[in-house]
Amino acid sequence: MPDKYPNSTLFTAEQLRRFTTRIFEYFGVPAEDAALAADVLAYSDEHGIDSHGVARLKTYYDLLKAGRINPRPDIKIIRGKGSVATVDGDNGLGLVVGPKCMEMAMERADSFGSGWISVSNTNHYGAAGYYPVMALKQDLIGLSMTNTTKGVVPFNGAEKMLGTNPVAIAFPAFKEPPVVIDFASSAVAYGKVEIARRKGEKVPEGWCIDKEGNSTHEPAEMMEGGALLPLGSDEKGSGHKGYCLATMVDVLSAVLSGANWGPFATPFAIQVEATNRQVGKGIGHFFGAWDIDGFRDKTEFKKDMDDWIRTMRSTRPLPGKKEVLIPGDPERLAYQRRMQEGIPVNREVVTSLESMAASTGIPLQHL
Amino acid sequence: MPDKYPNSTLFTAEQLRRFTTRIFEYFGVPAEDAALAADVLAYSDEHGIDSHGVARLKTYYDLLKAGRINPRPDIKIIRGKGSVATVDGDNGLGLVVGPKCMEMAMERADSFGSGWISVSNTNHYGAAGYYPVMALKQDLIGLSMTNTTKGVVPFNGAEKMLGTNPVAIAFPAFKEPPVVIDFASSAVAYGKVEIARRKGEKVPEGWCIDKEGNSTHEPAEMMEGGALLPLGSDEKGSGHKGYCLATMVDVLSAVLSGANWGPFATPFAIQVEATNRQVGKGIGHFFGAWDIDGFRDKTEFKKDMDDWIRTMRSTRPLPGKKEVLIPGDPERLAYQRRMQEGIPVNREVVTSLESMAASTGIPLQHL
Repeated sequence: MPDKYPNSTLFTAEQLRRFTTRIFEYFGVPAEDAALAADVLAYSDEHGIDSHGVARLKTYYDLLKAGRINPRPDIKIIRGKGSVATVDGDNGLGLVVGPKCMEMAMERADSFGSGWISVSNTNHYGAAGYYPVMALKQDLIGLSMTNTTKGVVPFNGAEKMLGTNPVAIAFPAFKEPPVVIDFASSAVAYGKVEIARRKGEKVPEGWCIDKEGNSTHEPAEMMEGGALLPLGSDEKGSGHKGYCLATMVDVLSAVLSGANWGPFATPFAIQVEATNRQVGKGIGHFFGAWDIDGFRDKTEFKKDMDDWIRTMRSTRPLPGKKEVLIPGDPERLAYQRRMQEGIPVNREVVTSLESMAASTGIPLQHL
Repeated sequence: MPDKYPNSTLFTAEQLRRFTTRIFEYFGVPAEDAALAADVLAYSDEHGIDSHGVARLKTYYDLLKAGRINPRPDIKIIRGKGSVATVDGDNGLGLVVGPKCMEMAMERADSFGSGWISVSNTNHYGAAGYYPVMALKQDLIGLSMTNTTKGVVPFNGAEKMLGTNPVAIAFPAFKEPPVVIDFASSAVAYGKVEIARRKGEKVPEGWCIDKEGNSTHEPAEMMEGGALLPLGSDEKGSGHKGYCLATMVDVLSAVLSGANWGPFATPFAIQVEATNRQVGKGIGHFFGAWDIDGFRDKTEFKKDMDDWIRTMRSTRPLPGKKEVLIPGDPERLAYQRRMQEGIPVNREVVTSLESMAASTGIPLQHL
C-alpha cells in the first residue's frame, strides 16, 4: 500500500470484477447478468466514482440475501408506442435491469430516431453515467435518470421529500474524448457529507440543514434527521432550480413508469424498512437515446463537438485555477491513473468486502 | 397608477397583445405569425416573467428594422427520421419559428410516441416555458431548450463562453394545476443583476465575476466585461453542475442543429455585431414531446401527479418560510393577479413602447 493512497488497499480492475461477479452469482444471479452487474459497478471504481462501485456491494449483498431483490427477474415491456415503452423490472437488480432497458432505448432510436424507456419495479442502478456511455458505442446521444431514496428537501422545505435524483447525458466527439455529464440534482452527494464526518470536518454553508430545518455546518446534524439541500441551496443561489431538476427526474422515472415517487421511493439499505405507504412498484429509472444521424450527418456533428471541446478548453481560467475542463475529464483522468496504478479501495470498504468473502468462501485478491 | 406598482403603468393583456401584434405586422410579419409572436411575449407579461415580454419588444423591433431578422421565413425540415427532425428557421423570429417547431414535435409524438425537433437559423424565442405549456393542451409532456448569447463562464473559467441556456418542461395533472418548470442554467438571470444596478444595490456572492475573474458584489462590474456564474456558482456550490446543464442545452440546441454554439451564438441586441467567427446559422432551439399514453394510462398518470403535487405542498416549510410551492405556482399566481388588476409595465419599458408607437404611428393604450 503506497503512501499516496493512505488507508486504502490497491486492487486491479480484474480482481474487483471477478469478486463482484462471483458475489452476484452466489445469490443465483445468472452468469451473464452477474457479469453485467459487475461491469456497472466496475465503471464507478475504474473512473474514480468511489461512492457507486464496490462501496455499495455490501448493500446489494444484504438485499439479495434478505430476498428483497429478485436475482432472476423477468424483465418485461408492459406498454409501448413507437419510440417509447414502459418496462416492469420485476424487482431485479438495477444493475441488470438498467443496462437491458438502455439497450431497448437504443434499439428504438435505431428504428424511430429516438428511444425512451421508463422503468418501474427496479432498484439502485449504480452510476447514472454508465448508461449514456453505453450509447456512445453506437454514436447515439444517451440519457439516463433515476429517482432515489429521499434525502433532499424541496426548495423552502424542511423535510426530505426527494432523492438526489441524478441526470446523465453523453455526446460523442471525433478525435476528442466524449463529453460525459453525470450529476446529482442536490447541492452535493450524501457521500461528501459522510466523508466530512469521517474526517471530523465541517461542511460549507448551503449543503445541508439539521432536523429543525436550520442551516448547519455539522455533518452529524444532517445525518441525524436533517437533509441535503437542492442544487443552488437557497434563494440567493436559486435553490428552486435544483428542486425543479429533482422534480423532472422523479416524474419521468417514477410517476411515468408507475414506481414509488418522491418520499415513497424504496430505500436502498437493509436497515431501513420500505416506507409505510407504497404508491407504485420499486423505484424508477428513465432512459433515452437519440440517433444523431436523424438530425445531422454524424461525422459533421462529431467534428463540431471536437471544435466545441477545444473552444471550451481554451477558456481563460479563473485566477488561481489551472484550466477549464470538459464534463467527463475528471473520470477519464482517474481511469487512466487507476488502470496503471490499480484501484485504491478505502479500508472500511475493504473490510466489508472481506466479510463477504469470509461468509461466502469467495476469494478476494488484491495487489 | 396605483401605489402598489411604483414606476409602472398598467395595461390590460389585450392592450399589450394588440400593440405587439401591430408592431410585428408593421415590419411585414404575416398577420397570423404576428399574433403568434405576440402570444409568446404575452405569455411572459401575463405570468410575471417581466424580463421576457414587452421588455424585449424594442430589440425585436430594432433587429426587424435593421433587416437582421426575416419577417417572412420559409421554415423547413431539412433532415429527419421517425420521431426526430432538424429544421432551418430561415432567420425568422424565434417567436414564430419556436411555436411552429413545437407543433412539429407534438405531431411526431402523436405518431411515434415522442417527437424531437432541433432548430438552427433562428433567433430569441421568448420564455422557454411557453413551449411545454403548448404541449399540455394535448396532454403531452413537453420540453424546450435554447442556446443564447454568451454571458456565462464555464466552471472555473473567467470568460463568457455560454449563454444562460434555459431548460423548460411541463407535466399535466388532473384536478391540480400542471407542474411547469422553466429555469436558466446560470446562477441567476442577467436581468436580476440589471435590476440591482438600477436600484443601486449590491448582489450576493456567487452570482457574478468582474472582468479579471474575481468574485464581485457590484452589478456594474459584471456588466462591464464581467460574466455570470453557472448554477451552483463555485466549487462548494457544485458550479460544475450548472456548466453541465448549459453544455447539454448548447449541444442539443446548436451543435445538433448546425447553429452557432457556445461563444459564437448570435447576439440578441442591435448594438452588438455578430461574433467574428460563425460556426453555424443563427442560434438553436430544441423541442421535445412525449405521449404519456405510450407509457401509461394518461388519466392514472394525471391522478398520480395530483397526489405528487399535494404531497410536495404538504412538506413542512423551513423556519421563516410560509410554504413549499410547486414549479409553476409563482407564474400562476402572477397570472391570476394580473388578469384582475392589469399588467404593470416598468417606466423604462413604457418609454421604449412609446418611442415605437411614435415612430410607427401604432397607438399604445393603457389603463
